[in-house]
Amino acid sequence: MTRQKSPASRLNEDLSPLHWNDEAKAKLQLLDQRCLPNEERWLSYRDDAAVAEAIKTMVVRGAPAIGCAAAFALVLGAEGYPDDAQGFRHAFAASFERLAASRPTAVNLFWALDRQQKVMEHALASGADPRRALRDEALAIWREDIESCRQMGRHGAKLLGKDANVLTHCNAGALATGGYGTALGVIRAAHEAGQGVHVYADETRPYLQGARLTAWELQVSGIDVTLICDNMSGALMRQGAINTCIVGADRIAKNGDVANKIGTYMVAVLAARHGIPFYVAAPLSTIDLETADGDAIPIEERSAREVTHVGKERIAPEGVAVRHIAFDVTPAELVTAIITEAGVAEPPYEHSLPGLFSS
Amino acid sequence: MTRQKSPASRLNEDLSPLHWNDEAKAKLQLLDQRCLPNEERWLSYRDDAAVAEAIKTMVVRGAPAIGCAAAFALVLGAEGYPDDAQGFRHAFAASFERLAASRPTAVNLFWALDRQQKVMEHALASGADPRRALRDEALAIWREDIESCRQMGRHGAKLLGKDANVLTHCNAGALATGGYGTALGVIRAAHEAGQGVHVYADETRPYLQGARLTAWELQVSGIDVTLICDNMSGALMRQGAINTCIVGADRIAKNGDVANKIGTYMVAVLAARHGIPFYVAAPLSTIDLETADGDAIPIEERSAREVTHVGKERIAPEGVAVRHIAFDVTPAELVTAIITEAGVAEPPYEHSLPGLFSS
Repeated sequence: MTRQKSPASRLNEDLSPLHWNDEAKAKLQLLDQRCLPNEERWLSYRDDAAVAEAIKTMVVRGAPAIGCAAAFALVLGAEGYPDDAQGFRHAFAASFERLAASRPTAVNLFWALDRQQKVMEHALASGADPRRALRDEALAIWREDIESCRQMGRHGAKLLGKDANVLTHCNAGALATGGYGTALGVIRAAHEAGQGVHVYADETRPYLQGARLTAWELQVSGIDVTLICDNMSGALMRQGAINTCIVGADRIAKNGDVANKIGTYMVAVLAARHGIPFYVAAPLSTIDLETADGDAIPIEERSAREVTHVGKERIAPEGVAVRHIAFDVTPAELVTAIITEAGVAEPPYEHSLPGLFSS
Repeated sequence: MTRQKSPASRLNEDLSPLHWNDEAKAKLQLLDQRCLPNEERWLSYRDDAAVAEAIKTMVVRGAPAIGCAAAFALVLGAEGYPDDAQGFRHAFAASFERLAASRPTAVNLFWALDRQQKVMEHALASGADPRRALRDEALAIWREDIESCRQMGRHGAKLLGKDANVLTHCNAGALATGGYGTALGVIRAAHEAGQGVHVYADETRPYLQGARLTAWELQVSGIDVTLICDNMSGALMRQGAINTCIVGADRIAKNGDVANKIGTYMVAVLAARHGIPFYVAAPLSTIDLETADGDAIPIEERSAREVTHVGKERIAPEGVAVRHIAFDVTPAELVTAIITEAGVAEPPYEHSLPGLFSS
């Protein structure tokens, strides 16, 4: 069964999880992803601290979407900064720090903050309006992110071929980006090109981004999807039911090691055992050439409650010890190729990844 | 944090999930495992159809526990059979079929039913009371199952060594057996011997036997346990946090292929990649020498609702397609050793498994 967006939906054609409106009092709107799939609720933001909290509490999630949200958060923050250059810089730095502390693993957050910092400095140095410059840059970051996803889609769709049975983990979809999606963007492009594609969506415990977001997003887009628990992909691979794996990334180190949602590593190990290609789709902003390898990527641990409860339902005994590792690292040797807007990188990644930035 | 049984608990020292009382009107009592960890509720049974339903609906689960429950179900059924031999046989066959249809994968169910059939035939042929014979045999099956678990514990504890960090999947504990447990029996024995043992319990989606049952059972027993999601074990293995894997089994084929709860295969593949031993603990009644290999083991698929809902909480969009494969097969090549009451079998299993039955 597939379903379309309801007529009342405020989603655009790229299914962007954020909107910007210069005319509104609260200019930034975020789709509250905690309410999906049951409700399409939009929240309005008018200051940077609230956006930092939205990132922390997963109103908005997904590395590229976090980057876009952080860029807009600085625009909101800037409305209240002093007008003098030093005061502006000082206030900007405080906003920057607040946002940088919201989530540690995804590098796009820091990439977007750095990009805004450069724009601010350039505006201040050249006598331009820094608020206007930040606003234009945030819109550019958003627009470029969607365009990057569409480019990734074009590159990646060729790799999927006809009638692909694709396993994906977590949500690397429109909802995780400015719109259109990275891993799901590739699937979307294959679907739009009429190649025929069926998706197995890992539910992705504990936060259930696969069950709640990926299954919903693909349904809305009319793409065939079957939901499975994270521990079922191995059995399906053994049965020959899956011929491609594709996931997103929160940070890719210079050597090609990939940090992504917890459980990604397991998918990659199973894919390697079964000779199934394992693709990572991510914009260049996810590639961190400053980080040598996966060991240097900070891995966020989140609250025990997200493991011991599902909604209001307690599923474990009181007082039990819990580990909630939110991300893992897949070593480069398990990654068949990395799909970016600038092209498809293959091993050895030490050479191919830097090459993408100069092309 | 650990906790002990409440003073009001009706659990015996083996934490048996079933009780038998000749004096009661409803002689069989089953611990309703659907209510754990929140409540220790016991349900009473006085006929075989209700026990078949209890097996189907997971009031009682775990291969050896299902075998024990089915053996007692035939005792309950026999109270209402006609007294003449032909009538008794006919009614027995109907009970047998009903119970055999309750769950397809665990072979202990069929093993226990077959054992009761032989006992009945022998009693009828020798002029003994078949009801009495069935009752005595069910008690023997139960008692022997607990004793087998204790033997497995003695054999397996040696393999764990000192200060083991053990990953287990699903619940192969006291609750899954007549009492004491298979995989958790080994852990229990190591704990009782003062070897020091810490357990990582996979939560085991979708039914959450690890979160609900294993975490609870180990807490009650004062054994250190940390709950994780099924997709976290790979990251922990990469960190070196796990040095042993041990699981139970629902059926072991002649070649050593192991059918067990969905997700077991994934654990075995990850263990192999990290050079971590992967042990299976199961009584001889789980070994099915009539089944050549894992491909011949029937794999149950269960309802989509167990995937799309946790308790009353819906976690996926309405109408989404779901696969709910309840078991998977781990090929013998990934199994380091199989721990039984008769000793520890090592590869090649075609030779070592039959040998266990003659020793």
